[in-house]
Amino acid sequence: MRRAHIISIGNELLIGDTVNTNAAWIGAMLTETGFYVEQVFTIPDDYQLIKSQISDSLEQVDLTIVTGGLGPTHDDITKKAVADLFESELREDKEVLNHIEQIFERRGFLLSPSNIEQAQVPNACSVLFNPKGTAPGMWFEKKGNYLALLPGVPHEMKYLMREEVAPRLSDLYPGIEVWVTDYFKTAGVPESTLSERVGNLDRFIQNGVGVAYLPGAGGVTIRISASGPKKQDAEKKLTVLKKELNMELSDCLFGKGKEATLSGVVGKILTDQGLTISVAESCTGGYLSSKLTDVPGSSHYMLGGVVAYSNESKSGLLGVDPAIIEKYGAVSRATAMAMARGVKERFESDIGVSTTGIAGPGGGSEEKPVGLVWMGFCIKEKEFALKAQLSKERLLNKQRSSIVVLETIRRELSGIPNYPYELKPQFP
Amino acid sequence: MRRAHIISIGNELLIGDTVNTNAAWIGAMLTETGFYVEQVFTIPDDYQLIKSQISDSLEQVDLTIVTGGLGPTHDDITKKAVADLFESELREDKEVLNHIEQIFERRGFLLSPSNIEQAQVPNACSVLFNPKGTAPGMWFEKKGNYLALLPGVPHEMKYLMREEVAPRLSDLYPGIEVWVTDYFKTAGVPESTLSERVGNLDRFIQNGVGVAYLPGAGGVTIRISASGPKKQDAEKKLTVLKKELNMELSDCLFGKGKEATLSGVVGKILTDQGLTISVAESCTGGYLSSKLTDVPGSSHYMLGGVVAYSNESKSGLLGVDPAIIEKYGAVSRATAMAMARGVKERFESDIGVSTTGIAGPGGGSEEKPVGLVWMGFCIKEKEFALKAQLSKERLLNKQRSSIVVLETIRRELSGIPNYPYELKPQFP
Repeated sequence: MRRAHIISIGNELLIGDTVNTNAAWIGAMLTETGFYVEQVFTIPDDYQLIKSQISDSLEQVDLTIVTGGLGPTHDDITKKAVADLFESELREDKEVLNHIEQIFERRGFLLSPSNIEQAQVPNACSVLFNPKGTAPGMWFEKKGNYLALLPGVPHEMKYLMREEVAPRLSDLYPGIEVWVTDYFKTAGVPESTLSERVGNLDRFIQNGVGVAYLPGAGGVTIRISASGPKKQDAEKKLTVLKKELNMELSDCLFGKGKEATLSGVVGKILTDQGLTISVAESCTGGYLSSKLTDVPGSSHYMLGGVVAYSNESKSGLLGVDPAIIEKYGAVSRATAMAMARGVKERFESDIGVSTTGIAGPGGGSEEKPVGLVWMGFCIKEKEFALKAQLSKERLLNKQRSSIVVLETIRRELSGIPNYPYELKPQFP
Repeated sequence: MRRAHIISIGNELLIGDTVNTNAAWIGAMLTETGFYVEQVFTIPDDYQLIKSQISDSLEQVDLTIVTGGLGPTHDDITKKAVADLFESELREDKEVLNHIEQIFERRGFLLSPSNIEQAQVPNACSVLFNPKGTAPGMWFEKKGNYLALLPGVPHEMKYLMREEVAPRLSDLYPGIEVWVTDYFKTAGVPESTLSERVGNLDRFIQNGVGVAYLPGAGGVTIRISASGPKKQDAEKKLTVLKKELNMELSDCLFGKGKEATLSGVVGKILTDQGLTISVAESCTGGYLSSKLTDVPGSSHYMLGGVVAYSNESKSGLLGVDPAIIEKYGAVSRATAMAMARGVKERFESDIGVSTTGIAGPGGGSEEKPVGLVWMGFCIKEKEFALKAQLSKERLLNKQRSSIVVLETIRRELSGIPNYPYELKPQFP
């Protein structure tokens, strides 16, 4: 099996200012591509260490991926260390320089000498052109082993891994063992319940299938993988497990594949059914709207929203009767319903939803503790509210309420009869 | 200075199913305790690699912290590798066995042979008793260098670092160097310009001061650090640099300290000046409101907002004259100003701001390309608009426009005369 090292460069990683998410992402991608990721080395912006670690890895393994230390400031010395290691002069790359100049022109900034220096690359490399930023990636070969230098900025690194490194690897190693990975994304079920529903998977694991539960802010993802000499062989190992997961997860399975997002799936359903939506937010404070509008093309179905933080705005902008707020409070079923109705009416959308709760850390009471959230739904003619008791953490509460709302819309429009976290709908 | 290595063991870290947050946490703690964390090694559950890496680190540095591979399953082999390295027999620790038995009794589970094995520890170690789980920590010494084996479960690892490892370190190294770190957080200036403004810092670096530029979604942070036998000595090394940074950064420096956020700082200014704000968002789609409402207590000054994605909502909810949209387009100075005025009026706030732009990836034209954003500001009696050309990335554009708006508000209310990214204000 082909072996790989990942070298992450940057003091910020060692003193704990930044968590090394790049290494995890690269590790997952290389594993899927059929590499055995043998080690990750996290090292400081130190010329000698950078040079010696890259030199060692180039000797030992087929592929070394290096991230970080390619920026324009004095502590970015990866390029220098590698140029010296290859005893290679630097040359100015015209295409890169041209690209850097365009970026600065477009933004109306002045080009500085340190930016121009970013267009210098060692003669020994071929350039991995980076349209997303000013630091180019670089690709080296030594005695049949390969080395990629990539910027540490996550979206730039990912772009170059996908568009430049991956195609080179499949050209270089056509006969490599093929890995197949799939992701089953769920929402509205806690990890422990999910794992009980799925049941014992030992018979698959003994057959070489990998299974992992990955809990995240948007729900729990189940990752399954297998390898074989050809893609079909690997896929065959997963066939039965996939069928079982589809059956066992059914109601809470919102999407498949690494890139699936709940708001993307909801957007697709809205598009397919020709429906529009608007959002009235109190405790989520814009987070739910922002999730919906993260999806490219969302302007076709997302008409907009109101962040109604003050009671006056709940009445003035959403038409909630002040008497309702007075009688039941801002965090109540009645206010949530009135907000959802109000936003649906004002935006003339097919769907109106709302959130109102105590996000925390302050503002709770015995009767209405921090983490209490009411969500209102007007989905075409159907109206109902959900009540949830979430956590003490402000940001988590914003995220989780938004997930419950999105997952409820998804289930409702897909004809799934039960609600996230087995919440019970309350009808007006 | 005392040097440390961190060794993280586990296949899940290398294939990217788990992000190595433990290493970041330990790195931060050791740095604060006065250690120079020289490297993090992430290695698989592989007997030979575990043994050789721990052996190398024990030779090279004063302190090696190892996490992972202490569980009850077949792939947990850290203990065996270290026992062999120390040529040490295993013994059964009575206290640990007793504790494991109690845990299983409490949970009503049957004790298996692999659980009983967890009470076996090498003779060469002293036990770091772990009340939080079944795997004990272990502490070794070799030729004046120290080694801790800790479980990989984050809350167990953290407990043992705090309660067992830290006290041993302060006993062993009473005169250890104290580290002082500070963070200068900036917005509205690109990293390269920032580094030129700050200028050459070699004279500080030669004096043992560490300086790093950390670019992030919210702007660029400059981290400075120094060590000394006492806190005052370390702080003294930073005094001149701090003064220089304060002077050179002045206008773009929004906060100091690791936890400072731009929306938190804006919130504090609004609170201090007794001002309220409301937000009209098109291209940022709720992101700006969500940032403002991330701050605990923001309901005191953030009255709310309107996400006006559709032209109808720009007119209906914000009172933008449809003739303006017709004549200048939704992405224009006139519409941005009308949105800011409209939201300020409707929420009766002191400040109204707006964003309208082409977030992308689609929807651009030659005249109005993807990444073009207009921002409108009505700050008390002052009205102006800013125009920026951002990137091709939808989510980045949402983030960056929001930062420009927040940083503009901060500068305006702080009496700073220039604008983020040297944008020029356009007055109606």
